[in-house]
Amino acid sequence: MKLPASVTIKEVGPRDGLQNEKRILPAADKIAWVNRLSDTGLSYIEVSSFVHPKWIPALADAAEVFAGIERKPDVTYAALVPNLNGLERALSAGADEVNVFLSASEAHSRKNINKSIAEAVQAVKEVTQQGLAAGKQVRGYISTVFGCPYEGAVALDTVERLCEELFSFGIYEISVGDTIGVANPQQVELVLERLLRSFPAGQFAMHFHNTYGMALANVLKSLEAGITVYDSSCGGLGGCPYAPGASGNAATNDLVHMLHKMGIQTQVDEDKLLGASRLIEQKLEAALPSHVYQARKHQTVSR
Amino acid sequence: MKLPASVTIKEVGPRDGLQNEKRILPAADKIAWVNRLSDTGLSYIEVSSFVHPKWIPALADAAEVFAGIERKPDVTYAALVPNLNGLERALSAGADEVNVFLSASEAHSRKNINKSIAEAVQAVKEVTQQGLAAGKQVRGYISTVFGCPYEGAVALDTVERLCEELFSFGIYEISVGDTIGVANPQQVELVLERLLRSFPAGQFAMHFHNTYGMALANVLKSLEAGITVYDSSCGGLGGCPYAPGASGNAATNDLVHMLHKMGIQTQVDEDKLLGASRLIEQKLEAALPSHVYQARKHQTVSR
Repeated sequence: MKLPASVTIKEVGPRDGLQNEKRILPAADKIAWVNRLSDTGLSYIEVSSFVHPKWIPALADAAEVFAGIERKPDVTYAALVPNLNGLERALSAGADEVNVFLSASEAHSRKNINKSIAEAVQAVKEVTQQGLAAGKQVRGYISTVFGCPYEGAVALDTVERLCEELFSFGIYEISVGDTIGVANPQQVELVLERLLRSFPAGQFAMHFHNTYGMALANVLKSLEAGITVYDSSCGGLGGCPYAPGASGNAATNDLVHMLHKMGIQTQVDEDKLLGASRLIEQKLEAALPSHVYQARKHQTVSR
Repeated sequence: MKLPASVTIKEVGPRDGLQNEKRILPAADKIAWVNRLSDTGLSYIEVSSFVHPKWIPALADAAEVFAGIERKPDVTYAALVPNLNGLERALSAGADEVNVFLSASEAHSRKNINKSIAEAVQAVKEVTQQGLAAGKQVRGYISTVFGCPYEGAVALDTVERLCEELFSFGIYEISVGDTIGVANPQQVELVLERLLRSFPAGQFAMHFHNTYGMALANVLKSLEAGITVYDSSCGGLGGCPYAPGASGNAATNDLVHMLHKMGIQTQVDEDKLLGASRLIEQKLEAALPSHVYQARKHQTVSR
């Protein structure tokens, strides 16, 4: 098995995790958590989302959170941005990097953001151009690549075409999203075989959810395909809006642990991550889905 | 990725699952659960253990459970047996098949059964000979193959030698055990490369625990190595005696779901398995670790 020597983890817990949690935390708790995450060795944290507060009330305090965090020079603090208004707010808040998103499924796009895919592409184009003009790097999420909660199967032709468009706008990396956690390792292999025929592996990140427990198996296939960037959430926070009670994003704890066991470097300190996980579990008062966290939470660690 | 067309699941929940659960169930509950499991399409159920009740009080009622279950002709009802006394009890109870066990780690062997590995091999030899003489097939577990809670790393030379001895006694299949869930996919590949140099893949089963969330990733590597028999527990029951709060065995639900998604047949009906999982969750009054179960438990299914 051929594996990369090192991997970059993009921590999406404060955004993708918290946006799907029942309990809405005060900004101070989010700030404390982001600060703890900054201290783990993670080089990238998606701090919040500047979508309209009406859509995601849990993240209505995005500007306050950005204003409150202590920034480390070697950490990128990114923001999710849906449109030009969101971009303006993200830039005022001082987001280091802009993340845009669209869906590969027409039905999911309409239900999620009330836009067709074509309209979403147009919005992404505008935000990307303005973001780049403001001197920010722009990263793109394509969601429901491995399946849609409304349409089921998603056409790989669509995914490939969207990648082409997004890269043509100047987006430096596309996060290939398994939004509802239905991807299986064989499908991951097939999707990546297809995408890597047209684009270099270094331009992709994988974004798995652990809804059906397959996230790490899917990561394994992606590693073998040469992908070296992975999105995950501290503690495995996040749930799934389409499956009440389900696990959330791939857990940063479990992902980093598996990578380290296989000799792959991440720069993330597992003990410090345990501490950051304890903090958010206490704030949310709900057991985190991460297996490593649950197996280790009672251990004494020095920090 | 080359995958087998079909896989056999050996359900170990009633034994390996319940032996590690805090709550001790009455025999009637176990009988009801085994009967539900028999109805899912599973062809193999390890019903209980005939170790001394002093060691595992949770399974002291093994004979009563065997006497109470309704047997289906196409299901093998197996029993774990530590010694000749246990074998006698298992045979009286009408176990279809005998499972023997030993550890690949000297320290774990002594702590677990108060025997050296050499003494354990001798006991396994006696039980196997007598079991075969009684007309039963005998299956062997080797535990701590991927790591020991006391010694850490375990020598592959020892594992290979133990396989050779067990097969020479007439054991038809060895279940390669990751007792504490520390195996990682790269290690699985290395261990299987080594074992399959000397023995055919058809003589092995893999027995993973999901303590650190890697069970399905480890299954994936085993499938690619040609292994077609897997131990798992309904709902992911079992915990880990060395990590309070940790996940248990690979969950039958998650395993079967992943296999089916990849087009691999198992004969197990996922809806019926959901029903059997609900039953045991209600009896234990503790949330099952299976991801598929948690994502689907609120769904209405016809049976």
